[in-house]
Amino acid sequence: MTETAEMKSNLTGPSPAIAERAFLFERGKYAMRVVETIVAMRQERKRLKGPVGFVATMGGLHAGHMSLVRQARADNASVVASIFVNPAQFGPTEDFKNYPRDLPRDLAMLKEGGVDIVFAPSVAEMYPEGFSSWVDIEGVTERLEGASRPGHFRGVATVVNKLFNIIQPDVAYFGQKDAQQALVIKKMVRELNTGIEVVVMPTVREADGLAMSSRNVYLNPEERKAAPVLCRALCLAEELCKKGEKDAEKIRRRMRALIGKEPLANIDYVSIAEPETLMEMDAVRAPALISLAVKIGRTRLIDNVVVE
Amino acid sequence: MTETAEMKSNLTGPSPAIAERAFLFERGKYAMRVVETIVAMRQERKRLKGPVGFVATMGGLHAGHMSLVRQARADNASVVASIFVNPAQFGPTEDFKNYPRDLPRDLAMLKEGGVDIVFAPSVAEMYPEGFSSWVDIEGVTERLEGASRPGHFRGVATVVNKLFNIIQPDVAYFGQKDAQQALVIKKMVRELNTGIEVVVMPTVREADGLAMSSRNVYLNPEERKAAPVLCRALCLAEELCKKGEKDAEKIRRRMRALIGKEPLANIDYVSIAEPETLMEMDAVRAPALISLAVKIGRTRLIDNVVVE
Repeated sequence: MTETAEMKSNLTGPSPAIAERAFLFERGKYAMRVVETIVAMRQERKRLKGPVGFVATMGGLHAGHMSLVRQARADNASVVASIFVNPAQFGPTEDFKNYPRDLPRDLAMLKEGGVDIVFAPSVAEMYPEGFSSWVDIEGVTERLEGASRPGHFRGVATVVNKLFNIIQPDVAYFGQKDAQQALVIKKMVRELNTGIEVVVMPTVREADGLAMSSRNVYLNPEERKAAPVLCRALCLAEELCKKGEKDAEKIRRRMRALIGKEPLANIDYVSIAEPETLMEMDAVRAPALISLAVKIGRTRLIDNVVVE
Repeated sequence: MTETAEMKSNLTGPSPAIAERAFLFERGKYAMRVVETIVAMRQERKRLKGPVGFVATMGGLHAGHMSLVRQARADNASVVASIFVNPAQFGPTEDFKNYPRDLPRDLAMLKEGGVDIVFAPSVAEMYPEGFSSWVDIEGVTERLEGASRPGHFRGVATVVNKLFNIIQPDVAYFGQKDAQQALVIKKMVRELNTGIEVVVMPTVREADGLAMSSRNVYLNPEERKAAPVLCRALCLAEELCKKGEKDAEKIRRRMRALIGKEPLANIDYVSIAEPETLMEMDAVRAPALISLAVKIGRTRLIDNVVVE
């Protein structure tokens, strides 16, 4: 995946969003089935030609998701996507209720992307009464997003494990935008012997560098203008690394200062960490995962870049 | 499974141990392969004709295990057994180090039982350095064995999940002797959508009623004579229920009094509980799971009966 590595550091170059859009409306020759129950999904699965590629989503689809679908379509005989806003990964004060839901639009996009089966279960189907079986990845889930969002990764690991068991894909595609999520899922798959290949695809960005996110729809026009400050802070860090800056705390300080100039921005965390353990670095060594979480108004955004 | 229900309450009848033994030496026409790595197991799995039956063991095999193998052999085209003393399900002061290990003997028994593949991995193969992915079933694991052995069921659920992912059986067989374990695994399979049928087979007993257990080898002759007190206490409870006794605490008291007369016995718990939630009952209602854990000398034994 040379292309992946190339695109990963391509924070400032032309956005893949335009290519994505062209792709979206090129397709449409596939018949797509939508199933809402686990039993029906298992039946559909039996009929699919392998290998099967899988893209798990919470809906609110954008070009980032579609880049995963495109790769899944290119790599596999069949493609399954799921749409499920997973309550278990939201904290009690988070945006589960308001999370963008537009099933007809999402289904149209997935159909255009050449998806064969969409699995769109209800909450009751996935979490029946009395549900109490959890998959917990310790260690890497305690930092960064895990520290800010207690229980988040337990919810993610559990639902992804369930989806993997129901859909039984050969390959699953996740986005680098949620870097820690990708790390947690790779660790889970390796340690629980799930036997699924995990492919992580580069972050897709708007023309001004803002990482594609379902939550971007929350931003009002003023906030939308402020939001690329996350990406600019990452670009600054990348530049400093390229110039040979080794003091991680100095880089974090410069990033915080840059974001501090944006009145609508409130920093949750700024991190320069070892990409496997997520331990903060004192001296920068490649590869380093530079990541941050920033509230723009009331919308919490995350972004990251890996310095190789 | 009418036979199962019948045998389950058959605490006092003739022991199936003799039939088991006959069965053990009848077989021997099968070629059995033993694999020690996950990669090799996956390769062997691809060659197996389905359906595949699976028996997970920690070795120390006895007629109880062999009744599972026999059922797996009868129900499936292929049978896989695992031998793995799982450190994750032992507490720090428990008997992991001393747990009975005799691989040649166990393999001979499994071969006689008609097993196709034995998966016997090392601890390092199953728990590589840095391992931190856990499957946790909340609620039902907090009572009885879970209360006495913190972390035990997390270890069980995790290793069984791993084994299921590696071996991909259609049906898995567990013993009713470990009633709470069977309950936890059934709940895990249902809630994590593992897609495996779980069959629970009745407890196999010695002629004097002692439930077969790998740990029975720990008992010295004097302790061995005292050990059927568990089974006798369960018989007493069954009798009292049959006579219409509804006061669960009265039954527990009678059981404790009976066990109290045995100088080598030390009660851990005596329980009369609802079989799905394991909540203790005040008034006995069928079905009720009557279970107990008793130390005989230094050996902790468990047993149970379901009153229908």
